[in-house]
Amino acid sequence: MATNRQLAQLVKQVRNKTVELCQPLLIEDYVIQGIDDVSPPKWHLAHTTWFFETFILLNQLKGYQAFDPLFQYLFNSYYQSLGNPYPRVRRGILSRPTVETVYQYRKYVDDYLISYIDYIPMQQLQTIEPIFMLGLHHEQQHQELLLMDIKYNFSLDPSFPIYHEKNKKSTAKASRPLELIHVEGGTIEIGHRGNNFCFDNELPRYQVIIKPYLFATRLVTNGEYAEFIESEGYQKPNVWLADGWDCIKKNGWEAPLYWKKIDGKWHEFTLNGLQELNLAAPVAHISYYEADAYARWRNLRLPLEVEWEHYATQHPTILRDGNFMEEGLFHPRVSTVTDQQLLGDLWEWTASPYTPYPGYKPMEGALGEYNGKFMSNQFVLRGGCCATPKSHIRPTYRNFFQPDKRWQFSGIRLAGDA
Amino acid sequence: MATNRQLAQLVKQVRNKTVELCQPLLIEDYVIQGIDDVSPPKWHLAHTTWFFETFILLNQLKGYQAFDPLFQYLFNSYYQSLGNPYPRVRRGILSRPTVETVYQYRKYVDDYLISYIDYIPMQQLQTIEPIFMLGLHHEQQHQELLLMDIKYNFSLDPSFPIYHEKNKKSTAKASRPLELIHVEGGTIEIGHRGNNFCFDNELPRYQVIIKPYLFATRLVTNGEYAEFIESEGYQKPNVWLADGWDCIKKNGWEAPLYWKKIDGKWHEFTLNGLQELNLAAPVAHISYYEADAYARWRNLRLPLEVEWEHYATQHPTILRDGNFMEEGLFHPRVSTVTDQQLLGDLWEWTASPYTPYPGYKPMEGALGEYNGKFMSNQFVLRGGCCATPKSHIRPTYRNFFQPDKRWQFSGIRLAGDA
Amino acid sequence: MATNRQLAQLVKQVRNKTVELCQPLLIEDYVIQGIDDVSPPKWHLAHTTWFFETFILLNQLKGYQAFDPLFQYLFNSYYQSLGNPYPRVRRGILSRPTVETVYQYRKYVDDYLISYIDYIPMQQLQTIEPIFMLGLHHEQQHQELLLMDIKYNFSLDPSFPIYHEKNKKSTAKASRPLELIHVEGGTIEIGHRGNNFCFDNELPRYQVIIKPYLFATRLVTNGEYAEFIESEGYQKPNVWLADGWDCIKKNGWEAPLYWKKIDGKWHEFTLNGLQELNLAAPVAHISYYEADAYARWRNLRLPLEVEWEHYATQHPTILRDGNFMEEGLFHPRVSTVTDQQLLGDLWEWTASPYTPYPGYKPMEGALGEYNGKFMSNQFVLRGGCCATPKSHIRPTYRNFFQPDKRWQFSGIRLAGDA
Amino acid sequence: MATNRQLAQLVKQVRNKTVELCQPLLIEDYVIQGIDDVSPPKWHLAHTTWFFETFILLNQLKGYQAFDPLFQYLFNSYYQSLGNPYPRVRRGILSRPTVETVYQYRKYVDDYLISYIDYIPMQQLQTIEPIFMLGLHHEQQHQELLLMDIKYNFSLDPSFPIYHEKNKKSTAKASRPLELIHVEGGTIEIGHRGNNFCFDNELPRYQVIIKPYLFATRLVTNGEYAEFIESEGYQKPNVWLADGWDCIKKNGWEAPLYWKKIDGKWHEFTLNGLQELNLAAPVAHISYYEADAYARWRNLRLPLEVEWEHYATQHPTILRDGNFMEEGLFHPRVSTVTDQQLLGDLWEWTASPYTPYPGYKPMEGALGEYNGKFMSNQFVLRGGCCATPKSHIRPTYRNFFQPDKRWQFSGIRLAGDA
Repeated sequence: MATNRQLAQLVKQVRNKTVELCQPLLIEDYVIQGIDDVSPPKWHLAHTTWFFETFILLNQLKGYQAFDPLFQYLFNSYYQSLGNPYPRVRRGILSRPTVETVYQYRKYVDDYLISYIDYIPMQQLQTIEPIFMLGLHHEQQHQELLLMDIKYNFSLDPSFPIYHEKNKKSTAKASRPLELIHVEGGTIEIGHRGNNFCFDNELPRYQVIIKPYLFATRLVTNGEYAEFIESEGYQKPNVWLADGWDCIKKNGWEAPLYWKKIDGKWHEFTLNGLQELNLAAPVAHISYYEADAYARWRNLRLPLEVEWEHYATQHPTILRDGNFMEEGLFHPRVSTVTDQQLLGDLWEWTASPYTPYPGYKPMEGALGEYNGKFMSNQFVLRGGCCATPKSHIRPTYRNFFQPDKRWQFSGIRLAGDA
Repeated sequence: MATNRQLAQLVKQVRNKTVELCQPLLIEDYVIQGIDDVSPPKWHLAHTTWFFETFILLNQLKGYQAFDPLFQYLFNSYYQSLGNPYPRVRRGILSRPTVETVYQYRKYVDDYLISYIDYIPMQQLQTIEPIFMLGLHHEQQHQELLLMDIKYNFSLDPSFPIYHEKNKKSTAKASRPLELIHVEGGTIEIGHRGNNFCFDNELPRYQVIIKPYLFATRLVTNGEYAEFIESEGYQKPNVWLADGWDCIKKNGWEAPLYWKKIDGKWHEFTLNGLQELNLAAPVAHISYYEADAYARWRNLRLPLEVEWEHYATQHPTILRDGNFMEEGLFHPRVSTVTDQQLLGDLWEWTASPYTPYPGYKPMEGALGEYNGKFMSNQFVLRGGCCATPKSHIRPTYRNFFQPDKRWQFSGIRLAGDA
Repeated sequence: MATNRQLAQLVKQVRNKTVELCQPLLIEDYVIQGIDDVSPPKWHLAHTTWFFETFILLNQLKGYQAFDPLFQYLFNSYYQSLGNPYPRVRRGILSRPTVETVYQYRKYVDDYLISYIDYIPMQQLQTIEPIFMLGLHHEQQHQELLLMDIKYNFSLDPSFPIYHEKNKKSTAKASRPLELIHVEGGTIEIGHRGNNFCFDNELPRYQVIIKPYLFATRLVTNGEYAEFIESEGYQKPNVWLADGWDCIKKNGWEAPLYWKKIDGKWHEFTLNGLQELNLAAPVAHISYYEADAYARWRNLRLPLEVEWEHYATQHPTILRDGNFMEEGLFHPRVSTVTDQQLLGDLWEWTASPYTPYPGYKPMEGALGEYNGKFMSNQFVLRGGCCATPKSHIRPTYRNFFQPDKRWQFSGIRLAGDA
Repeated sequence: MATNRQLAQLVKQVRNKTVELCQPLLIEDYVIQGIDDVSPPKWHLAHTTWFFETFILLNQLKGYQAFDPLFQYLFNSYYQSLGNPYPRVRRGILSRPTVETVYQYRKYVDDYLISYIDYIPMQQLQTIEPIFMLGLHHEQQHQELLLMDIKYNFSLDPSFPIYHEKNKKSTAKASRPLELIHVEGGTIEIGHRGNNFCFDNELPRYQVIIKPYLFATRLVTNGEYAEFIESEGYQKPNVWLADGWDCIKKNGWEAPLYWKKIDGKWHEFTLNGLQELNLAAPVAHISYYEADAYARWRNLRLPLEVEWEHYATQHPTILRDGNFMEEGLFHPRVSTVTDQQLLGDLWEWTASPYTPYPGYKPMEGALGEYNGKFMSNQFVLRGGCCATPKSHIRPTYRNFFQPDKRWQFSGIRLAGDA
């Protein structure tokens, strides 16, 4: 458990990081919402603040006065038990509060948080700390969302704005060869263990029987995915799920989200601007449907989430030095001989729908809406990505998206029956 | 294995049953399509025939000439590998082929099938019989779909047509009390066993660890569900999945599909016409979202499909005498002291998304599209219903629907953590 | 004014004609609704009957009992003052009442009408006759709608059903040359004159000043329109109204409604089946947007409705022998030296929005909804077509459709500033 | 004709006014687009600049280099002959160019314009001046659009931002009584006369015969419109056009656009913030459908545009001192004894669809798309409003909107048959 001082330190550090990520933005960039799925950056700044204000200050700090009562409505994301939230799809049509006011809101709440932490008695800290930790991990999720959403918004702009000039050029032009490792099956344990923070959806730890399986030693590359496109994979219904086929036909998809063919050459929009496609780098921004179809086309499949977690926890040494947000690349790296890309680089689609673990209990009260209510029509992704804070990820971490979403940094890990 | 004579007998029997189910229809009833999900009855009659024509006659019978080449397009449901099918949503705007022509088509194909069976040599029968069996089970699925679709179409008609005058009145006004049976967990086996017919999605049989669980001794009744409505269950976001909440708000749902309040009293549209709601009978035509919300409101949950199958196979004696299509009620019955309603009455939503069993292999060729490609965004239902042919169902049978669908005969089985 | 006997005769004649037009239909053909705009043939049969039942029998005949009270709801087209009508877009999902019941409905109402006419006293006949006349002209409008709707429904069927085998082949392969007649302007009178039947929207007659204008001596032909297509007229935004451009791009239109290119050759779907396009025949089934764009491309324009009426009433001799419903062609004819195609063949789009004449008064009561409430967002068409009963049309007759509609038999008359 | 100096003066004055109108905006306010109909303020600033750059500098000034070639795409509104414009509905998802860049763009173009004007030789000025004048009137149209769009955007914000604190309070609580003036008919002349600027759609002047008519001496007030609401006017189908009825039911309209009932009292959102409704002030932000229904409910009608122009030109003395943009109220005023509100206050819906005058010729080239291509599905409004620059309006001026639009400052002038 953290001391008051450590907690205060952590709060400052994480909260400041969010602000730091917004440094390259101009005021106008904070306002826009390119599609319903993304949120304006200023909304993220305010909503993460609202989270602390709502679940800590208003709940715990006697006499605390909300910065602006209207914000309880505007910056509630989806907590129906706190009242009908402002509609998500209309976040991009509000010019007020201004960016400046949102930063004042952050300062106001941060100041209260820090002084509040200061005087929490030891015994109370024990019950309050988990909510702080939840708020910080929540903030880290929105740090990644900020990068995802900025990337999406910028990609719609025909001037292709650059969020970040890459300083360390990733010049590797060849990835390690793709091997499929044979892993023995058996009765294994899955789920979070120990006292460190985890989300409710990683619990309770439980036993499961798995069969022997094959597991790829790296992510699928752009070059490999380009073969799928060239072999007319997007025109072959037999490798697609029925919903996937409908999805690509309805949306006219014929390549990953950010690929653009310019003068006959594939390019890719990145947070470093529009780049020529590096065939050795992992294919990114792929829907579940595309990941699944690609695997099927290779006569393989996506891993189950229990296989993924089993493999990852069996290989602790390869989990170090992943390509996370802190690297400042904001783009997946070419795999090297020592890097299996398990943590970092890209989230990896698993073949597992997002369901509760046996005996799952959501948190009490409004926080019970954090995770549990999304357990339908989504698939689990594992491993974090180049936009995920390093301290945020674990091998038991479960991310989830609808199978047609692809603005997250998602990639393909192949697996198979042994 | 069946003899040629037995097979011919079976084919006639099943094929005639489909025609028999259409006897109450007037010609106009065969043509309409009330919503995209349902198909006109004449389409079902033709499509099941197309299945035999395509996968048996055209494939196996040398020199066979299709009844009408256009039917290969019109009555292909979703087999993309056989060419782009006629759009599902436009089935109700075709007046031709007429009902009479469709019956001629059935006779033409049936005559060929019967004479073909006659002369299949023993050794060939072994490889052909499975396709016949698949065609017959496919036909049985469409028998149930016919009843579902006729019910839906008729429900839209303000004159509330009666498909079938109930002959044996189900007069029971009280159901057995609802008990929750405590069942031990452990390592169990799931999936089809033996040589009888099953679909590919019931295989391969595999081992799974389950925890102790609670399992209800009957389906939830209309009266119990009415309590949920009266307690404003449809206005309480905290018992709903996020997608479920969106679904009921978007569609304005405030009760099961066929409930209608007339002069302050709940009525229910049935294949026997509009009836006053029997509070003791099982609640029917419920979406997954509603079933899940109801269970959550009772502080329980829906069973996993492995729990359902485990419970059902542990209680073989209670599987007899279910309320199936052959009963001719086409409506669920009030549970009796000896009837746990496991098979028949209503399909029971499970909390399990529809996914492949470990090691699942779809069939070869176009038939590979039969089941596998639907394994996303759907939930498994178990147990069959009052519109399912008795010989069609098994405890290992996996039905599946999107969680917002409710025109199937679906109900609620409660379960819980022990 | 008609005698009772004459009126009874007329009622029988017109009502029977509607039934006669349905003779080629099979029962299934009566049920379908290909798009929202069209209605199932059985709906037309019932609605025209409802019109007489509602506005004559229920209003005038003491003690008359409605055939079925539900029909007051089902077959009310758009008379809001008679209660909320059954939704237009859902006419095609009702199998009941059956075709047989609808014919019984017609007989029931016709029998009452005929016996009622028999005993109307002379003085009452004067006030009742106009409503009978309105009912009969209404019935004639639906005769044309029946042909339009059957054509549209059949066109969606890949088997291209034939409504009517053409008996007299229209073999002409060349039309008269297109001349533009110079007509003097001045102060003219427009609108219906005399005691014969007309709709309220043709009144009151009024004075208007027109400028000299040019008026084409025949309709635009398929061949001439094909030149527009070949010159990439559908890709040239500058000849289109802004709404027209949006319309053709959104709908992907690149040719008139029923044109289909088969093996590089234009064909046209007609009530006589799919035919090779006769380049000399008038181009048909064209939206206002297409007609307007074509005229603009020719550096001409469409006529104003006052120009059309002025020209037509100046040329009474050319109004005879038009190609109407009675010809039984149900398709426009090639123009001949003596035929300027003013009445019959195709409705002619005018450049005039559908607005009331100065001093216009709608009918009293529910019948006031007949015409007046549609006076926005529509354009006037003049002249009748090959599906219009001959006794239904007059030079002052104003038809009207939204500018994006093209399932009516519409064509292009060119005009210009002199 | 203007001298070079006068023209330069005028250009500076009008261009500066646009910038002045944006002074109250914060940067974020420039970016948003509340609905498809409105545009972000920064788009207006850029588009009006693009107009001068495209039609003057790029066309006339040899060697001129576009500020940014991408702007030719981004800020083209609807000129298809200049290439496919950036989609209107996506204007609000672009953060770049920034507001600062847009102001630089304005300065860059203004500087070129002013120096260009300086050296235009007299004889060339004659041909160039009309394009300058068009650009300035275009700019004035966008000044009004800016105010309309800011008002709409702000109205969606639950904090109800204030664009402008009213300085001169309009305290009048009673309007002059509504009289209907009887005006004689006859043959009159309509359309622009003289050498001053007008749009192409005001020409050519032509003769038309009108009947005697009644014309109201002021606009309909909020109080009078509230009577319509209270008498359940929005629930009475018989006073509505069919399209109007569909429109209000589909959109759930039950009051003018900016009316909000708060604690049982009507309020109105204005550019001066949310205000209690002044019953004596004119009802504003009304669709054609509502204006038409209101008039019908009063047994009157809307004026024809020829009646409006006839009345206005007959009463030149009442045209002075209207309530225009320059007043700085940005809201209609209560009518006074001497003020018939013909020019200024609110645009007045006429019953006339927007069509070309007899002999109308659009401008040559791309500028031909300015007005003519919108002549379908719109109605003419006359008179200007409190957001219209005074020098922009004339009695012959024709504004036009689709009948379901109401974000423009529109009101109701009653008229009738004499």
